[in-house]
Amino acid sequence: MNSGQKLWHEAKQIIPGGGQLLSKRCERFLPDQWPAYYNRAKGCEVWDLDDNRYIDFAQMGVGACILGYADDDVNAAVTDAIAKGNMCTLNAPEEVELAKTLVELHPWAQMARFARTGGEACAVAIRIARAASGKGRIAFCGYHGWSDWYLAANLSENSSLDGHLLPGLEPHGVPRGLTASALPFRYNNLDDLEELMAKHDDIGVIIMEPQRGSAPDPGFLEGVRAIADRTKAVLIFDEVTSGFRMNLGGIHMTYGVEPDIAVFGKALGNGYPIAAIIGRRQTMNAAQSTFISSTMWTERVGFTAALATIEKMRANNVQQQLIAFGERLNAGWEALALKHGLSIHVDGIPPLTHISFNHPDANALQTLYTQEMLYRGYLVGAAVYMTAAYSNAVLDAFIAESDPVFGTISKAVKDGNVHALLKGPEAQTGFKRLT
Amino acid sequence: MNSGQKLWHEAKQIIPGGGQLLSKRCERFLPDQWPAYYNRAKGCEVWDLDDNRYIDFAQMGVGACILGYADDDVNAAVTDAIAKGNMCTLNAPEEVELAKTLVELHPWAQMARFARTGGEACAVAIRIARAASGKGRIAFCGYHGWSDWYLAANLSENSSLDGHLLPGLEPHGVPRGLTASALPFRYNNLDDLEELMAKHDDIGVIIMEPQRGSAPDPGFLEGVRAIADRTKAVLIFDEVTSGFRMNLGGIHMTYGVEPDIAVFGKALGNGYPIAAIIGRRQTMNAAQSTFISSTMWTERVGFTAALATIEKMRANNVQQQLIAFGERLNAGWEALALKHGLSIHVDGIPPLTHISFNHPDANALQTLYTQEMLYRGYLVGAAVYMTAAYSNAVLDAFIAESDPVFGTISKAVKDGNVHALLKGPEAQTGFKRLT
Repeated sequence: MNSGQKLWHEAKQIIPGGGQLLSKRCERFLPDQWPAYYNRAKGCEVWDLDDNRYIDFAQMGVGACILGYADDDVNAAVTDAIAKGNMCTLNAPEEVELAKTLVELHPWAQMARFARTGGEACAVAIRIARAASGKGRIAFCGYHGWSDWYLAANLSENSSLDGHLLPGLEPHGVPRGLTASALPFRYNNLDDLEELMAKHDDIGVIIMEPQRGSAPDPGFLEGVRAIADRTKAVLIFDEVTSGFRMNLGGIHMTYGVEPDIAVFGKALGNGYPIAAIIGRRQTMNAAQSTFISSTMWTERVGFTAALATIEKMRANNVQQQLIAFGERLNAGWEALALKHGLSIHVDGIPPLTHISFNHPDANALQTLYTQEMLYRGYLVGAAVYMTAAYSNAVLDAFIAESDPVFGTISKAVKDGNVHALLKGPEAQTGFKRLT
Repeated sequence: MNSGQKLWHEAKQIIPGGGQLLSKRCERFLPDQWPAYYNRAKGCEVWDLDDNRYIDFAQMGVGACILGYADDDVNAAVTDAIAKGNMCTLNAPEEVELAKTLVELHPWAQMARFARTGGEACAVAIRIARAASGKGRIAFCGYHGWSDWYLAANLSENSSLDGHLLPGLEPHGVPRGLTASALPFRYNNLDDLEELMAKHDDIGVIIMEPQRGSAPDPGFLEGVRAIADRTKAVLIFDEVTSGFRMNLGGIHMTYGVEPDIAVFGKALGNGYPIAAIIGRRQTMNAAQSTFISSTMWTERVGFTAALATIEKMRANNVQQQLIAFGERLNAGWEALALKHGLSIHVDGIPPLTHISFNHPDANALQTLYTQEMLYRGYLVGAAVYMTAAYSNAVLDAFIAESDPVFGTISKAVKDGNVHALLKGPEAQTGFKRLT
């Protein structure tokens, strides 16, 4: 057993679930074999506790590290902020600078608030939106974190979140008083949303990821915007995952549809905890009619990291790089699939691309891919977040290393012995099996 | 107008309320005159945007910076973590080390979870406690942050939070379905709690600050513990403010009463965002029956800062210093009051002491104290958090500078011209007036 797996087993005795994030659980990648912990990370390279080196083609910090791990420029800004004191009784001026920067990038927005995590920022946005609209019920689409307001969706019908979060999620510990307070609609399905709005005149908030996986059908986002306008609901775009990948800001700018509030996290600070809620002045001012306040939201590093990250993304036109890298990776995968007679499906925006095998035993094939690539020095998951730390050479090398592995997978499919080649259990995908 | 006030006025146009924390709003200290923003901070010294230097006798980062601003040892550990990559697809081993450290410090606890802010950590604790008890209603005492579950207390009777949070708080944006889901009991009043429990057999969670302000009456905390045991409610001690001040961990250890869950924040990471939820194995395992997950909770700096902070507090016996400093400050204030014929009230634990003037115009007197001390190079609020960055010399100098100011206040009281001496409006104290 590697040192990481040993520590992971210890961790599960002392931390429920082993860690703080479902998407970083070893079992979701490669049970019993995943290196679990890192000693150091730089660019797109990761060294585990046994000093094995990997190239990260999995998540790059679950999408947080767009510029790469330990980016020199962001770290220089953060180190300076730390030396000058990261916390004080007085406020950090970088907070105001970040607010200005974000509203400049999004001309429809005039005000900003900040939090430290994406889930927290969504909860802040929901509070402000409910206060602004004066109506408490929520229509939602997509994933929005762990908070009560969102998990409440599963109180009335516990499959409500299946298409949005993970199958099998039970909302234990979410108060029953929230039953039917958050109602789902399907992506690219305006009829769903129309039906909800017709049925409930107290829906004051529509929250959705503007894109996750497939692109919006023509007119879909515009249709949602029109419904929100007509019903006087506050429209929130949750850009925690989609933000800063296709352009310098929310992906909604690519589609030309403007929300009333947008929420950012993950990539905003290149891995340093910072999240933002931006919105129209009239909507955001509702924050003044309620209580939204937290000590750690005032800390300096988060603002500093976000400013340095945005500056570097802008200077280097990083989003264009990410798109080109994603397209190169997708083309490489498609070519390998063709060569080896495998059927795959590639989905998502190029900067956040997903691969899946079209096969009844798809998950076993994916696990085999992860396993074989691990021993070739790559961390691989089904989702790959692009990073500016990649290069064409890194991508081409990844595809070159994937070539014989696709060959192995193809042969295993033909021989019908995929499971025999797995050195441990299959990756876990649902929610229930992980707990 | 100083540079800080200029920026603060700009901030209010772009950030609802001006900042992320009520307790850092300029109006709460000295409207129009407070320096508002810092350029750098070190030890207990702060430099504002105009490079004026102050000694912080206000909040030391709202209680976060127990070791002082930009502490060399904590910063060395953090700088190293940053160089080695603060975020990765793999987990940070420091997460497990911090979990071990916290349960070692609190032998009644066996498991830990982490978040980044105190309010968020309380919401996690509430989720786990509700899931563990299977009962949704909450009895609470004290302040527990901005989350829906807590503000819900003001839905049924909007004075419920008056003694706990701030008067005049309206819970706009909190869903009506949570009405009567959180019910207050008064500190040092077991009858209150008994009455609640008798009235509602679905109270599954009792959450309180074990001490805030006055000490617990003998038997009070023990009585709460007994009620929780009898009714099978999960008892949560919110130690976000009280933790790591009187001893190396929760203040509940000083009183010898153990909760089922304890929550830490603020001082835990000396100003770096990190919060912890620790608890008994049986209770904490309920986290596995629900969904509690966030990307930024996995970030390395938070864990690293907490480990370095705890190590230094332990090595230097910091809590004993904080107690001694607080007692020295209180004695100094009492002596000055006697000398100048002022009646004051000193409250709280020595490491977090509060001064108030016994006078019908107490707030004006307090504002005058803050104003006059500001021009002598001190940031002063009604609450003073002790820091290891103080020394007897720093405390004695503060009292020496306060001497003529107490003289000014005393004379103003006699002359009846306190308001004439104020160069700006009085400090704001309630909630409503701030929004």
